[in-house]
Amino acid sequence: MSSSLANSGHFAGRSLSDLASDLRRRRTTAVDLVRHALDAITRLDPVVNAFVTVAADESLTAARQADRELTDGVDRGPLHGIPVAVKDLIMVAGRPVSMGSRHYAGHVAGTDAACVRLLREAGAIVVGQTTTHEFAYGPTGDRSANGPSRNPYDPARMTGGSSGGSAAAVAAGMVPLAVGTDTGGSVRIPAALCGIAGFKPAYGVIPTDGVFPLSATLDHVGLLAASAHDCRIAYRALLPERTPPVGRAPRVGRLDTRPLFPVDARVLHSARTALESSMGKDVLRIPPGVAEELREAFIAIQSGEAAAVHADRLAERPDLFDPEVLERLRSAATVPAWKYVWALRARPRLADAVDALFERHDVLTLPTVPLTAPLIDQRNTRLDDRQVRVRDALLALTSPWNVLGLPALTIPAGTVDGLPTGLQLICRTGQEELLFETAALTVGEPHVH
Amino acid sequence: MSSSLANSGHFAGRSLSDLASDLRRRRTTAVDLVRHALDAITRLDPVVNAFVTVAADESLTAARQADRELTDGVDRGPLHGIPVAVKDLIMVAGRPVSMGSRHYAGHVAGTDAACVRLLREAGAIVVGQTTTHEFAYGPTGDRSANGPSRNPYDPARMTGGSSGGSAAAVAAGMVPLAVGTDTGGSVRIPAALCGIAGFKPAYGVIPTDGVFPLSATLDHVGLLAASAHDCRIAYRALLPERTPPVGRAPRVGRLDTRPLFPVDARVLHSARTALESSMGKDVLRIPPGVAEELREAFIAIQSGEAAAVHADRLAERPDLFDPEVLERLRSAATVPAWKYVWALRARPRLADAVDALFERHDVLTLPTVPLTAPLIDQRNTRLDDRQVRVRDALLALTSPWNVLGLPALTIPAGTVDGLPTGLQLICRTGQEELLFETAALTVGEPHVH
Repeated sequence: MSSSLANSGHFAGRSLSDLASDLRRRRTTAVDLVRHALDAITRLDPVVNAFVTVAADESLTAARQADRELTDGVDRGPLHGIPVAVKDLIMVAGRPVSMGSRHYAGHVAGTDAACVRLLREAGAIVVGQTTTHEFAYGPTGDRSANGPSRNPYDPARMTGGSSGGSAAAVAAGMVPLAVGTDTGGSVRIPAALCGIAGFKPAYGVIPTDGVFPLSATLDHVGLLAASAHDCRIAYRALLPERTPPVGRAPRVGRLDTRPLFPVDARVLHSARTALESSMGKDVLRIPPGVAEELREAFIAIQSGEAAAVHADRLAERPDLFDPEVLERLRSAATVPAWKYVWALRARPRLADAVDALFERHDVLTLPTVPLTAPLIDQRNTRLDDRQVRVRDALLALTSPWNVLGLPALTIPAGTVDGLPTGLQLICRTGQEELLFETAALTVGEPHVH
Repeated sequence: MSSSLANSGHFAGRSLSDLASDLRRRRTTAVDLVRHALDAITRLDPVVNAFVTVAADESLTAARQADRELTDGVDRGPLHGIPVAVKDLIMVAGRPVSMGSRHYAGHVAGTDAACVRLLREAGAIVVGQTTTHEFAYGPTGDRSANGPSRNPYDPARMTGGSSGGSAAAVAAGMVPLAVGTDTGGSVRIPAALCGIAGFKPAYGVIPTDGVFPLSATLDHVGLLAASAHDCRIAYRALLPERTPPVGRAPRVGRLDTRPLFPVDARVLHSARTALESSMGKDVLRIPPGVAEELREAFIAIQSGEAAAVHADRLAERPDLFDPEVLERLRSAATVPAWKYVWALRARPRLADAVDALFERHDVLTLPTVPLTAPLIDQRNTRLDDRQVRVRDALLALTSPWNVLGLPALTIPAGTVDGLPTGLQLICRTGQEELLFETAALTVGEPHVH
């Protein structure tokens, strides 16, 4: 791990609360913070490749404005003056946006995405766009027109994806917060593999307007930060009306992963010990038939919707896709309509089956991914003595919650052989605060409220 | 036409208004009407094969109850005491319902469909279940476990379908009113080929609960009667709150059929002359690209949804399907999901394109089907010097309005070589009354209000 770039940037170990406090005590300025971000990017990104676009001048201008506002007593809250990165398929007016694809080389966004408007209203400064797996269609993060993003813990390894650049940018300390999208785990997977926190509220809570779609009924916008606490601060800052206090200790259960996928035993141990010993004693289980149907529904829905998004490009310019992405899209285009119809109709029934697990528990925990970061370009591995595809492994524990649109949070859960693992927390829609309450009680989190 | 059984039954030439008037003047009773229906069925149905089930005892009991109510001064309105037939995929509590399929041989319905509840509340008496093309999946009406329904105008010819039995039962005068379903034209096609009126209000207006689905986003429940006026009376009786008066003369345009399908010149002439000379002078045109997209969207949506409904049966007991229906379902099961997704997303755009045709017109007219009734089992024909499939021809002028969920009405438009033709009227959702207003002004309709 001598080559690790994790936590090398200015923002490593600096929580959003620290930064907000420093800004208000005049120990730092938004301009300073943006300069630190730009410096870290300059220094680290040649290896990490987290960024596609860096808007230095525009960010410094915005930072000066943020500083003036603070001086004038206009305080937009905890993200005021904070440098943020957004995934390179989220529109920022006037900025290049490539979706990680040669199809959009040189494309410039016309207007801000809704989530960018929320960031701006909260005073955040969008310093740049982060590498995405081409069209967000892959959990490995190593197929992009911008090249693979690299894991700060070991640049020979994948970040995971598709929001790989967003995770790497935070993990390396280049920015304290990033925005990504999550259709089957694309926020949580790279967050877990890069040792940070990643959060997606329930489906539709952060609007997807102005985000290039992968699969409209599964796409979520999510947040990546060093800790769950920072995700919570950012979430509250962006959507204050969505975060009522809970006022009780969450009842936490542990989800048996066996119906979902084999999990590396050390990763499983790591996730278990991240929970304080008092929590998660009850083991809950998805019926195997439900787990299988959730997997099938995810594939049918994502395939049908993704292939529809790209039908014209597939017909007219297949050569512009990365070959692996092209192959996956062509395969997705063969999924029959009846399976898609079946999947949409199965959803309410599957939702009821999973909802039953929450009868006596608020939060279900399980590992976020069943393994640590594979090598870039690695496509197969062994897990629990089974040969598995890396892609299937990465998605297996996260995608069921996209099918159901449930809130999900991944938090760092220690390392295995120096590589990060993640603990995932799931709750009912509307109870996002319980995820943060639970995270606050885990071993790795700062005990702050 | 010596073998024609059209208008042979008691109800031939007897409008719902006549019957309602006779009932209230004690010139007849509900028991008499049901007996007339049962007699006509006994006499004519061995040839026409319109009925799968006849509930003689139950109907007579209901008729006695209806007569008692009238005697007691309880008047449920114009359908009170009227014998009605419903398609054999509409649930009537305690009665056999086969969907025209060996898969449901011996199956008995548990509860009434919503439309049956409406009929009962309006005092109608459901005398029997009418032959449907197997699972309503075919516009020819000649593939049913009950055998083909036969056109009363020529029993060697098809009724059209899938509500073939409902159309034939009315056309032969066995009942004055029948209920059918219409996913791509399944009410209007047999109504036109059998020389009666068929009406489907906008999507969702008559609820489909308790109706076996073919394609849930296209399925409509509709009414079949001798005239548009009778459809109007029945519609008002079933859904009084849906039928506000209009208070102005409808502006009628004629839709150019060429972007949709070739039409037999004599059928086209027949439809044109059904309109009074003062109406329908303006010719309106769907852009050919829109017509093509409507056709593609119809196929994608119906295929995906129908194959999903039957996925288990296709896997487990394909042998129970009629071979042609099986082949069509297997072909439907290969339609890719992305086309279904595309079709659902294209709908609002296509709806806007068609809505533009209503800018200066309330009602668009066109032939209902481009030909007269083919022979039973006939699968190909020539139209306008082109070899075409009968199935494509039958659906071509009706299915676009199912994609958009628009109200549609077919009325008799004279005969060609002794076989009926239909004039179809289309309007914007919510303006169903304008269809009836227009029909009242056509040549063939009784001038009653």
